[in-house]
Amino acid sequence: MSLLVCRTLRQASGLRPTAKIQPRSVRAASTAAGPAFDWTDPLASKSILTEDELAIAETAERYSQEQLLPRVLQAYRDEHYDPKILEEMGDLGLLGATIEGYGCAGVSTVAGALITRAVERVDSGYRSGMSVQSSLVMGGIYEHGSQEQKEKHLPLMARGKSIGAFGLTEPNHGSDPGSMETVAKPHPTKTGYFSLSGSKTWITNSPIADVLLVWAKLQSTGKIRGFLVERSVCPPGTLETPAIKNKNGLRASITGMIHLDGCPVPEANMFPEVEGLRGPFSCLNSARYGISLGVMGALEDAIARAREYALERKQFKGNPLAKYQLIQKKLADAATDAAYGTLAAIQVGRLKDQGLATPEMISMIKRRNCDVALSNARVLQEIFGGNAVSDEYMIGRHVANLFVTQTYEGQSDIHSLILGRAITGVQAFA
Amino acid sequence: MSLLVCRTLRQASGLRPTAKIQPRSVRAASTAAGPAFDWTDPLASKSILTEDELAIAETAERYSQEQLLPRVLQAYRDEHYDPKILEEMGDLGLLGATIEGYGCAGVSTVAGALITRAVERVDSGYRSGMSVQSSLVMGGIYEHGSQEQKEKHLPLMARGKSIGAFGLTEPNHGSDPGSMETVAKPHPTKTGYFSLSGSKTWITNSPIADVLLVWAKLQSTGKIRGFLVERSVCPPGTLETPAIKNKNGLRASITGMIHLDGCPVPEANMFPEVEGLRGPFSCLNSARYGISLGVMGALEDAIARAREYALERKQFKGNPLAKYQLIQKKLADAATDAAYGTLAAIQVGRLKDQGLATPEMISMIKRRNCDVALSNARVLQEIFGGNAVSDEYMIGRHVANLFVTQTYEGQSDIHSLILGRAITGVQAFA
Amino acid sequence: MSLLVCRTLRQASGLRPTAKIQPRSVRAASTAAGPAFDWTDPLASKSILTEDELAIAETAERYSQEQLLPRVLQAYRDEHYDPKILEEMGDLGLLGATIEGYGCAGVSTVAGALITRAVERVDSGYRSGMSVQSSLVMGGIYEHGSQEQKEKHLPLMARGKSIGAFGLTEPNHGSDPGSMETVAKPHPTKTGYFSLSGSKTWITNSPIADVLLVWAKLQSTGKIRGFLVERSVCPPGTLETPAIKNKNGLRASITGMIHLDGCPVPEANMFPEVEGLRGPFSCLNSARYGISLGVMGALEDAIARAREYALERKQFKGNPLAKYQLIQKKLADAATDAAYGTLAAIQVGRLKDQGLATPEMISMIKRRNCDVALSNARVLQEIFGGNAVSDEYMIGRHVANLFVTQTYEGQSDIHSLILGRAITGVQAFA
Amino acid sequence: MSLLVCRTLRQASGLRPTAKIQPRSVRAASTAAGPAFDWTDPLASKSILTEDELAIAETAERYSQEQLLPRVLQAYRDEHYDPKILEEMGDLGLLGATIEGYGCAGVSTVAGALITRAVERVDSGYRSGMSVQSSLVMGGIYEHGSQEQKEKHLPLMARGKSIGAFGLTEPNHGSDPGSMETVAKPHPTKTGYFSLSGSKTWITNSPIADVLLVWAKLQSTGKIRGFLVERSVCPPGTLETPAIKNKNGLRASITGMIHLDGCPVPEANMFPEVEGLRGPFSCLNSARYGISLGVMGALEDAIARAREYALERKQFKGNPLAKYQLIQKKLADAATDAAYGTLAAIQVGRLKDQGLATPEMISMIKRRNCDVALSNARVLQEIFGGNAVSDEYMIGRHVANLFVTQTYEGQSDIHSLILGRAITGVQAFA
Repeated sequence: MSLLVCRTLRQASGLRPTAKIQPRSVRAASTAAGPAFDWTDPLASKSILTEDELAIAETAERYSQEQLLPRVLQAYRDEHYDPKILEEMGDLGLLGATIEGYGCAGVSTVAGALITRAVERVDSGYRSGMSVQSSLVMGGIYEHGSQEQKEKHLPLMARGKSIGAFGLTEPNHGSDPGSMETVAKPHPTKTGYFSLSGSKTWITNSPIADVLLVWAKLQSTGKIRGFLVERSVCPPGTLETPAIKNKNGLRASITGMIHLDGCPVPEANMFPEVEGLRGPFSCLNSARYGISLGVMGALEDAIARAREYALERKQFKGNPLAKYQLIQKKLADAATDAAYGTLAAIQVGRLKDQGLATPEMISMIKRRNCDVALSNARVLQEIFGGNAVSDEYMIGRHVANLFVTQTYEGQSDIHSLILGRAITGVQAFA
Repeated sequence: MSLLVCRTLRQASGLRPTAKIQPRSVRAASTAAGPAFDWTDPLASKSILTEDELAIAETAERYSQEQLLPRVLQAYRDEHYDPKILEEMGDLGLLGATIEGYGCAGVSTVAGALITRAVERVDSGYRSGMSVQSSLVMGGIYEHGSQEQKEKHLPLMARGKSIGAFGLTEPNHGSDPGSMETVAKPHPTKTGYFSLSGSKTWITNSPIADVLLVWAKLQSTGKIRGFLVERSVCPPGTLETPAIKNKNGLRASITGMIHLDGCPVPEANMFPEVEGLRGPFSCLNSARYGISLGVMGALEDAIARAREYALERKQFKGNPLAKYQLIQKKLADAATDAAYGTLAAIQVGRLKDQGLATPEMISMIKRRNCDVALSNARVLQEIFGGNAVSDEYMIGRHVANLFVTQTYEGQSDIHSLILGRAITGVQAFA
Repeated sequence: MSLLVCRTLRQASGLRPTAKIQPRSVRAASTAAGPAFDWTDPLASKSILTEDELAIAETAERYSQEQLLPRVLQAYRDEHYDPKILEEMGDLGLLGATIEGYGCAGVSTVAGALITRAVERVDSGYRSGMSVQSSLVMGGIYEHGSQEQKEKHLPLMARGKSIGAFGLTEPNHGSDPGSMETVAKPHPTKTGYFSLSGSKTWITNSPIADVLLVWAKLQSTGKIRGFLVERSVCPPGTLETPAIKNKNGLRASITGMIHLDGCPVPEANMFPEVEGLRGPFSCLNSARYGISLGVMGALEDAIARAREYALERKQFKGNPLAKYQLIQKKLADAATDAAYGTLAAIQVGRLKDQGLATPEMISMIKRRNCDVALSNARVLQEIFGGNAVSDEYMIGRHVANLFVTQTYEGQSDIHSLILGRAITGVQAFA
Repeated sequence: MSLLVCRTLRQASGLRPTAKIQPRSVRAASTAAGPAFDWTDPLASKSILTEDELAIAETAERYSQEQLLPRVLQAYRDEHYDPKILEEMGDLGLLGATIEGYGCAGVSTVAGALITRAVERVDSGYRSGMSVQSSLVMGGIYEHGSQEQKEKHLPLMARGKSIGAFGLTEPNHGSDPGSMETVAKPHPTKTGYFSLSGSKTWITNSPIADVLLVWAKLQSTGKIRGFLVERSVCPPGTLETPAIKNKNGLRASITGMIHLDGCPVPEANMFPEVEGLRGPFSCLNSARYGISLGVMGALEDAIARAREYALERKQFKGNPLAKYQLIQKKLADAATDAAYGTLAAIQVGRLKDQGLATPEMISMIKRRNCDVALSNARVLQEIFGGNAVSDEYMIGRHVANLFVTQTYEGQSDIHSLILGRAITGVQAFA
């Protein structure tokens, strides 16, 4: 490529390097006396956060903008996830942050979700990798594991030295885990061991995981139980975790399958008490909560980028796009949804810490926040016109990612029916 | 009409008297240990209200359900507003409730809005009549009036013995009050008096008002000022307040015009200091705030009625409508919007009491809450099928009313542009 | 009311008499050479109509604008339907126009629907009264009646001298007529007579009908059959047809119930052959087809009125509303839906005349056209701002009417499921 | 990867090879007598196509399904466009098909669009490459070129032996080509030559094009003129056409920039007469028309794939997804939009051949059809749940592509304003 071309590509085309968006602390100019409207936090959600929470959010935001943002574009193109990211997060105390003890920070539920929001402001895939580690696996062990299981795994996982995966979904049972086929039976040759067989799919982190929390039906009771499968001790051929490639979204996270073929797992690696769907559902509940505030980060980033583009891009008589009513309405709608979704998520977080949150509340905010993050990101993408097709504008990636967040951990329609059942007392699943 | 017919009309047709909907305190059955999901308050907004606020809401709800609900259907049919309603509200301390002193209760901003929500659960028209009295006129006098004006008017108005109207909108300037044509000039014959001339339209309460807060341009300065026009002392022919009839909505409130033709108003009746649009806008700000929580009441009533209908109405093989996925989704969407809108309004109320609310925040919640109240009420109306056309099902009235709330005190598109300007710093009004 | 007030009400308020909107033939100015875009017919549907069809449409439009428009406002306010309207329509040959012979015009299916569109451009209630007469009753007799039944009823009905009503829907079975409870058994005392008992509701024209086509289950077979109940010969107390008042929409049509209590009906008044739901469904099919083009008339009128208002109404710096992007988008969306819906309805009409139309096609256009007529009318209503609440602007009436068209003759959700079944081969009704 | 893994990946995961969807000719089973509903053509658009058109469509569909479908998945992953595709299309007579003479087929406008629909049923990128060749470049030469230009270029291009690109959009002027900066001035050294300088971006086919139709301002008049830039004779360094990589959509087409730096172009290569925006706009008009039917192909493919998935995928008690109301509604909505959009596009095609189509009509169908293709494809994508993220299900690619079709050749908002201007006579661009 000639020098002429290189220069022009960058300058004339308006293609920009994948820049950090303006600092989050910039505020609209205050009028003489009164308080100022801050478009980055339209309903002043900061006013109901604690000092600690604001400080944690600040740390997570700085790390995400400085360490994650610069590598996300290439990672997404290459479908590459760098496991070192979990170590970095661990060094900052971002993993399993709501857990008390075991080397974890013990922060509030809202603080934990502010971390997910910071990471998801960069990329939903990075947040997914973290959510699996923190909420699904560490959270699962903390809630349901034996004391030995906690002590063995949590400190290492908190530092990102051990990576977790959560094996629930099976190829033929996406929204209906109760029909699971993976089974645990007494190992035919190794005393004190179960033998696990079955397949799981769409498992974030599975190809790089050290510890796989696998849910399987215990043959003797027919009840679902949780098993900690440790890769390092699985005999060859009994555990395979192939990556799923060519994804349409979440390409900066790594996703795979889990194939178990008579894999021996010590009896001591089974969660001691929890039986049935209650086990995985309690983990999902925490993860879904984190998603509900996490996706607000992606939406806020989409707003910030669309706003900046609308102010810089001139059309017709030199007016910035920002001057057009049709553009302003898109921004106003998105900012409103971000503000409302943030308040709702904070409220449920507070209730969770008081023991007052119900799964239906989490269904409500997971569903709505994912839906509005996606729908608004799509509308904001229109502001970029033809330029949206270039990944350097950082908007198409959010759109593609957010579609996935809408479908995983409870597709929106399923949550509609969960809510419908809670409202009417009548179930409509089948 | 034969006896046969009467009986059948009531029974066979499924037409029900305009019943009170189930008590608000009914909760979904609690599961063994955990907290229960309450479809009437899905995100537990009650948990962030004070004891006082809950008690005030209870009083307002009881009055509204017991005293207002039984008369609304006929009032709406007849386009009749009974001024006694304001006296009843005054007796309970519901008027100007956020004002300190002057016979007012001095409750929190949120408490004040819980009153509007209770009244609007019955009818947006009843709420409109109250909002004008409380927020626009009493609030205006309290904020901008002289000590004499406050002492003369507020105690009477608080008891509903004097009725107020707010004259801002003119026939040719709906969304653009800055172009107002009503003028105040020195009275040609009466010393110490202004002479007011001009027309105002769509003025709630004007035909029955005792005190009309009229905004007019002071001829000598060209600046907008506020005037308290007292009907009892206006010479014949100088003040006319004809009612506007045949409205499509808000028929249980009374609406009219104000025609001033050289009406003499004492200089002492002008607000002493406030000039320009800041005067009426600060009043509107309070009224809009009240609307934002008020319309949630209408939406919640629509949800409760649609839910009840869906549970009672059987179609195909005797299944209740509530069993259909398409019905459940409508209910889930509406409940989510009601929950989110309520939390957002409470948050802004708290900020308002701390002096941290901005007009743009109120634009955001007024616009969004009116929009979702209307759009969901329309969708819920579909659940009633052909029966929705009967006014006895109490759903069409909400739909018609809520359209009006979307257009008054700032049509939604105007609020979009206010928000767009706040977000981008660029104005797109013209 | 003083003279001052009267003058101002009309002039200063901008309230206009219920004027005829600009002639439909006005076209956008043609550019030099090329064809011109006609906003009243954006995709030139006229180019696929025949000369005859255009002439019939012209007649129906002139009648509707000259004879129906001037009285609709008062009729709607009063919930009054003037039966003389059917006579007037009969004089012009507008009733049962697609029927061959029996004093009917024998025009194409599309021509018949152009008549409904012309009438519905004024009011959906007027169109409903006509549809019942033409499609449901005359069409039913023509398709299923004996030669004697045709000769006795069709010529009188074609002239509007005899009024029909169609009794299918029962109080407890809106979307599910197969569960009907009305029954016909041998008359206990009158030989050669059936005795009919049962109730029907939401029956357009029932209070003024001379001939009621009632569908009832024949006791001996359990099959649904059609009966022509002639009011003039029913003994007192055996037929009651009370009106249903206080409707939210379609107030310019008359709606009622039908109560049959041992009503004697001659055997010769039963349709000779048709059994089961096929009978009423074939009638509904024709009526639904007419609705699908009819509602386009109401939508087009809403567009024309909103466009005119947007051009006349000035806001901010004297710009007409029409200059605002948010307004233009509303108009563009509505015009597109009107154009698309019109083409789809014409296509199905052509297929119907060739025997190639299926009920699912009619479900598709009835559902979609009613949905878009309603949703666009609602959006266009926003253009009128606060003035929309006055019935003189003629927009709120369309909105209220169109909601009813969406729910009757197959609520939109039901048609979704009919289409879903046709697409997938799987039924999802229960 | 072990054999175990490979087998499971294919079977257990439900991942399917990128199969051809059921033959288009499969029809719903016909009921006894009447016509059958065909979900692939719900409103029987085939009934208004000619035999010739049906045969052309058949040829294009067969080629697309047999030759294009098998390679699209890999091409999209690799962002690779095989120029041989245009030769294959040329061999079948699919290029410039509406042109009379010069080796072109001379078919109807509708037939030409049926070809684009067939190709876009596989991929919008393949269709884009063809549209540029056929509509923008060949169409432009045919309409505006000199006899010599036509004879030189059209026969070669019709056979796909010469590839065209269309250079209009500039980096800073997406929706506003009138502000173009590319300029043509007399060449300083070569007599009879212009010297062209400037940059174009988002140019489909530019990196592989032999003939680039470049629009530039003629310095002497300031008017826009069209120039045929032939790559083979451009001196080194005067023409660069770098590819733009890492696109979010249309990855199976090739897109690039055009940089002209004093590029010498013979005077005989300028279009002889056409001046101003009329030149490029007439080309765009034809291309937009093709898009409007083309995107219906992508939508129809999305419907077919979602329907098949919904029938095969079981959830809860073994019911196929197709049994759920929420799924059926999505399919019904999409099928309706596909049917309506198809009819509208055919109508405008007929008008075009009669000289009766206006640019506004094409704005209307380009905007609406792209909008509904995109919005429905997104909704249908939800049916696939988590599996949608795998590109092998062939749905995410349509979604990503259709977003681009919505933004190019007139972003939807721009077309809204074109329509708004046509409807109101008032322009709102700035």
